[in-house]
Amino acid sequence: MSSPAPLIEVHRGDMLESLHSGHAVVCDDSGQIVQAWGDPMAVIFPRSSCKMIQALPLIESGAADAHGLTSEQLALACASHQGAHIHTDRVQVWLDQLGLKDSDFRCGPQWPGDIPARNEIIRAHAQPCQIHNNCSGKHAGFLTLNRHLGGAADYELVDHPVQQAGKAAFEEVTDMTSPGYGIDGCSAPNFATSVQGLARAMASFASAGDRSDTRSQAMVRLTQAMTAHPELVAGETRACTDLMRAMDGRVAIKTGAEAVFVAIIPERKLGVALKITDGSTRGAEAAIAAILVKLGVLDADHPATRARMVPEIRNWRGTLCGHIRPTRALL
Amino acid sequence: MSSPAPLIEVHRGDMLESLHSGHAVVCDDSGQIVQAWGDPMAVIFPRSSCKMIQALPLIESGAADAHGLTSEQLALACASHQGAHIHTDRVQVWLDQLGLKDSDFRCGPQWPGDIPARNEIIRAHAQPCQIHNNCSGKHAGFLTLNRHLGGAADYELVDHPVQQAGKAAFEEVTDMTSPGYGIDGCSAPNFATSVQGLARAMASFASAGDRSDTRSQAMVRLTQAMTAHPELVAGETRACTDLMRAMDGRVAIKTGAEAVFVAIIPERKLGVALKITDGSTRGAEAAIAAILVKLGVLDADHPATRARMVPEIRNWRGTLCGHIRPTRALL
Repeated sequence: MSSPAPLIEVHRGDMLESLHSGHAVVCDDSGQIVQAWGDPMAVIFPRSSCKMIQALPLIESGAADAHGLTSEQLALACASHQGAHIHTDRVQVWLDQLGLKDSDFRCGPQWPGDIPARNEIIRAHAQPCQIHNNCSGKHAGFLTLNRHLGGAADYELVDHPVQQAGKAAFEEVTDMTSPGYGIDGCSAPNFATSVQGLARAMASFASAGDRSDTRSQAMVRLTQAMTAHPELVAGETRACTDLMRAMDGRVAIKTGAEAVFVAIIPERKLGVALKITDGSTRGAEAAIAAILVKLGVLDADHPATRARMVPEIRNWRGTLCGHIRPTRALL
Repeated sequence: MSSPAPLIEVHRGDMLESLHSGHAVVCDDSGQIVQAWGDPMAVIFPRSSCKMIQALPLIESGAADAHGLTSEQLALACASHQGAHIHTDRVQVWLDQLGLKDSDFRCGPQWPGDIPARNEIIRAHAQPCQIHNNCSGKHAGFLTLNRHLGGAADYELVDHPVQQAGKAAFEEVTDMTSPGYGIDGCSAPNFATSVQGLARAMASFASAGDRSDTRSQAMVRLTQAMTAHPELVAGETRACTDLMRAMDGRVAIKTGAEAVFVAIIPERKLGVALKITDGSTRGAEAAIAAILVKLGVLDADHPATRARMVPEIRNWRGTLCGHIRPTRALL
């Protein structure tokens, strides 16, 4: 087992102030490691980075087609959105289609990350609902699958058919038995895997166009939904949205809490997974941008790339104080 | 040079999800290391953790007494406050005393961390001012010193007499030449030192009651101001405030951006300084709490201690998902 590799440096003036280390793996369509940093076998919780895996049973079961889900809805099922109106309005329509209401969600209420949406609630002296939860699209997917399966209302429990279907898909695409699970921020179980297992799963998504089985077709639909609707997967100013736009729909990427990031690169049939050991989002964003540049699918000079890979640190008066940058290992 | 030591673990369920490593030093009144983790010689930016050092010239110059500064004002000079009314109202009075206005500050406007104060501005469709900046108390101190010294308005520049006085005090109490400086979030220069240098400075504050020179008297006044007004040094729900209250005025502690924390323990004549390498506040808070417990000055069972040293991780529905805890090295 290797130690985490130093991946991202934070500089103030000309001195190093902070450092982010982690594990990262690039896998090809045979599941083999093309490149790795740190320990590929490090066990991690993928958190929201695996939402496209959790959405597989929604399609494979026939639930998505039975409910006529659109590409936008599939993108929302894979999303960690920021509760802007473009997100919550669509999830509300989806709930209405199911004849369900906010209280049927099991994800819990969360303040929107979207500033205008947040301020609207504050000015109304109101409180956020479960639909504002960044996972409400995923949970709308769970509710749809649950309706299809005829399961009980507690769809978030680990032994519920909805979550067991997710677990089976997860272990199949990561090609390993999950060593355990934790409860995620949205109350659903989150199954652990290795960084390599997660990268292998992403490579399977990336190469799914070569195959014609039900799973591969579902993988292609989900990847295309994410790349077709980058604004639904996260939101304005967010790394997932900005970087997917910068790659013009060629690559799907997804963040997860505690500094996980994955990428699905169909044109190269490559999958990427990384975890910054300390859980810092700024480190994960800089690292995924650097790896995508290194793999030749993201333009290093695109403003969205620079803002994530080598962001400036400015203070409250706008003075440039320092910058974040990848270590030599990522260049 | 040693590597950073693993200090704080983040667990989800029964598995390790994230890890914070860092450097920490406990120094006695002779400046010797009593205990250390990681590399005592690691160079760090103290950021706001050194505000009590930056406030020394304010007292030593005679400016504080010439302006009749109160203990509350001295606490605010050492504060990273959250822009609540208890903070901004007092800084406004101070500005009025000086006959100055918000635009005389050079710290930049910052949204208050205090939720009621923030919401008030949002509901008024207004924007924060420089007085809301967490450093506005420190800057009121700079303005007071500058008035006393008759310096130019650009008191935040590194070559200005106000900052040169701060640099001299900093190098004297850390007992080392600073290897360089960076521009802080509030536009003032922040001088780098070693973790040991910062701990040595805190031990000097802690043992100042044994000495009668001007500097030592200033150190005692600042330490007492911090411990007498913990709510002014940070604010409600904040670690500095809660933990100082839990220690009943016996210990002064102060956080700094990018995961720095210091403690001044007069009853033991000990100084503490720590830096979590990755810059995560949760790691620094857990580590300082653990060290204060280890040193016998903080009750491990106090709710404020538990909330910082071994905080529960709960999700949006309030379900317990995991916990943060110190590694064995800190227990």
